[in-house]
Amino acid sequence: MKNVKCAKCIKCGAEIEAKPDITTCPTCGGIMDIVYDYEAIKSMVTKEDMAARKDPTMWRFKEFLPVEADSDTAGLKVGGSPLYPAKRLGEKLGMPNLYIKDDGLNPTSSLKDRASAMAVVKAAEAGAKTIACSSTGNAASSLAGNAAAKGLETYIFVPERAPAGKVAQLLVFGANVISVQGNYEDTFRLSAEAIDRWGWYNRNAAINPYLSEGKKTVTLEIAEQLGWKAPDYVVISVGDGCTIAGAWKGFKDLYAAGFIDKLPKLVSVQAEGCYPINKAVAEGYDTLVPMEENTIADSIAVGVPRNFKKAVDAVRESKGITVNVSDEEILEAMKVLGATSGVFGEPAGVAGTAGLIKAVAAGLVPKDATVVSVVTGNGLKDIVSAGKAVGKPLAVPPKMDALLDAFKGIGGPQ
Amino acid sequence: MKNVKCAKCIKCGAEIEAKPDITTCPTCGGIMDIVYDYEAIKSMVTKEDMAARKDPTMWRFKEFLPVEADSDTAGLKVGGSPLYPAKRLGEKLGMPNLYIKDDGLNPTSSLKDRASAMAVVKAAEAGAKTIACSSTGNAASSLAGNAAAKGLETYIFVPERAPAGKVAQLLVFGANVISVQGNYEDTFRLSAEAIDRWGWYNRNAAINPYLSEGKKTVTLEIAEQLGWKAPDYVVISVGDGCTIAGAWKGFKDLYAAGFIDKLPKLVSVQAEGCYPINKAVAEGYDTLVPMEENTIADSIAVGVPRNFKKAVDAVRESKGITVNVSDEEILEAMKVLGATSGVFGEPAGVAGTAGLIKAVAAGLVPKDATVVSVVTGNGLKDIVSAGKAVGKPLAVPPKMDALLDAFKGIGGPQ
Repeated sequence: MKNVKCAKCIKCGAEIEAKPDITTCPTCGGIMDIVYDYEAIKSMVTKEDMAARKDPTMWRFKEFLPVEADSDTAGLKVGGSPLYPAKRLGEKLGMPNLYIKDDGLNPTSSLKDRASAMAVVKAAEAGAKTIACSSTGNAASSLAGNAAAKGLETYIFVPERAPAGKVAQLLVFGANVISVQGNYEDTFRLSAEAIDRWGWYNRNAAINPYLSEGKKTVTLEIAEQLGWKAPDYVVISVGDGCTIAGAWKGFKDLYAAGFIDKLPKLVSVQAEGCYPINKAVAEGYDTLVPMEENTIADSIAVGVPRNFKKAVDAVRESKGITVNVSDEEILEAMKVLGATSGVFGEPAGVAGTAGLIKAVAAGLVPKDATVVSVVTGNGLKDIVSAGKAVGKPLAVPPKMDALLDAFKGIGGPQ
Repeated sequence: MKNVKCAKCIKCGAEIEAKPDITTCPTCGGIMDIVYDYEAIKSMVTKEDMAARKDPTMWRFKEFLPVEADSDTAGLKVGGSPLYPAKRLGEKLGMPNLYIKDDGLNPTSSLKDRASAMAVVKAAEAGAKTIACSSTGNAASSLAGNAAAKGLETYIFVPERAPAGKVAQLLVFGANVISVQGNYEDTFRLSAEAIDRWGWYNRNAAINPYLSEGKKTVTLEIAEQLGWKAPDYVVISVGDGCTIAGAWKGFKDLYAAGFIDKLPKLVSVQAEGCYPINKAVAEGYDTLVPMEENTIADSIAVGVPRNFKKAVDAVRESKGITVNVSDEEILEAMKVLGATSGVFGEPAGVAGTAGLIKAVAAGLVPKDATVVSVVTGNGLKDIVSAGKAVGKPLAVPPKMDALLDAFKGIGGPQ
């Protein structure tokens, strides 16, 4: 890889060769980061080259990605999700420069497809035939789908609380699914042991440093969609920490390669029922204090975030802010976003929007700022929660008189 | 509209001006068809123009669409769905030239978005602020979502049996949902009366001739994605008849405008539990004989298809074939498609693939033909059916010993 220098430990600074199957630091066990040669990237691609490309997927940014030039990246159509000017939501909030990035429109309906598409390409580079992960749901189904498209076998460990829709989805994709009778931490531990035992390729986002590199394509896209500008703020929901770390890496890479001329502030949104990363940032400490996992937003209910340091560092480096939201605020945001934008997000997917609404109300984000709120997963993933967000339809007998009566009661048309 | 000549009744041949709010034939009540001026289209756009366009949505084909040049088509990102070379499924079936068009990746997760995106643009042209339909399924959610993005109010009439999850989705999009205490026919009648009374814009695919024009963009895309070639066969599931009629119209329009040099054969797939259109084609009669609606594929369970004639005519004109599939074949196709391609379709969405598998086995479609199988809706729309297709995950306590035991039981790794 001409564009990659090495992998570097974020804890002890050790540098190793960026082989396709690296995981954590061989010296200290810390999480690795992929280090690029930005001069090489600059010599390989320009904004004009990018503008001429027809590939709408995340692979349009190949010079910014840690894959071999001859790797076969064909697979599901990951990336290229819309960045909508959120006109009506913006009017409601008094924000004229608000955008929604709907990453729930990825092939398996979440942002996690960006990491999984990367994982299956790196697995193929490593010569692996089997790939495994533990996940609360979206990483699992995205791995299963992306692996199915490439003909790789998958073993996927999910905690027993994973919603039925997500589990059915990954079974349809032909995955070997293990439902672990425990929490996410138990699930993660068992998957790690199994991966060690059988030598499967590891798609655990914090362990495998390439996965954040896939996730960062969401911000490469945002910057390109804004005409190679970074927004003032990027709002994103945070669980394990890999997504916000990836988002930040994307902006830093673009900045280092001269594609954007400033960096955004990150708004890290977690649930009031589980916010270990935000707590550390807000209170200024560096060691993870695990928390309970009490939130409707299952995809970000991570009491022991594996990418704690990268996430905390990202928010701090960006001079960002943290917001914690209640389940009620998440459900309210789901409704507001749906009704004003036609975007239907799952609870974790709209938690970012809930956090933005809260942050703006508190004066933490200026109303005239250019803000991108990332919706990380599709609402169809969790219809039960959607039911909690909304009321009931108007029930009427099949007669116009009855409809008129019912409308009268709610101030409807007559 | 410089590219549109008129609207013409497919029953009596009456021609009327293509105003934005036309419905059925004012003379005989027949269904109308939009008639284009193909010489005008040829003078407006070339294949080369199209290649230079960056808009990935269905509106990239605007010269082929019945909208005013200055209409605001911004909204949800409808269209631009992937056409995947189905390498692994093709190997399984011995078909080297098989493609899957995954239209479940539209914004509200079904092909119906193409019709609803058209509906909201035409509603705006007609000066309407409110748009209405009766439906329990994809048409309803796509209308609600696309209307929310444009700031149009919606009234959606659902029969009381409508599943809570689907109703929740409508409510998230801010629709006024009226749950009618009666069957679908009662619901339809009340909605028709309400639409008449309040002058709402009518989003009923068979009643409003513009909606097939939106749907036809799926085949405009297929042809462009194949390098302006029609495949030999296009396989599609059929319910009300509007989608296959639209698909055929798309190819005919491209052929008439010189963008493709042959027409494909259509493979019309219905459920064994409900196949009134296929029955008429197969037995050679012209008058609808209603059928019961007994299939898991709810989106194509239409015993009284409102676009019967357009659909029957399309299959016949294309010299196409008809295939009926059982629920078991649909569920099997869901699994096969998911596991070989990473595409997750709802039952009606994969019925086409089930029909293709059956048709190829019966020798009705040659194995070396270029075939596109359209997946019309996302599997997340109906996870209950997906659950029937796949069974359960392997449930284990969070211990390696337990995992080994469980694997032993199913012949897994040790």
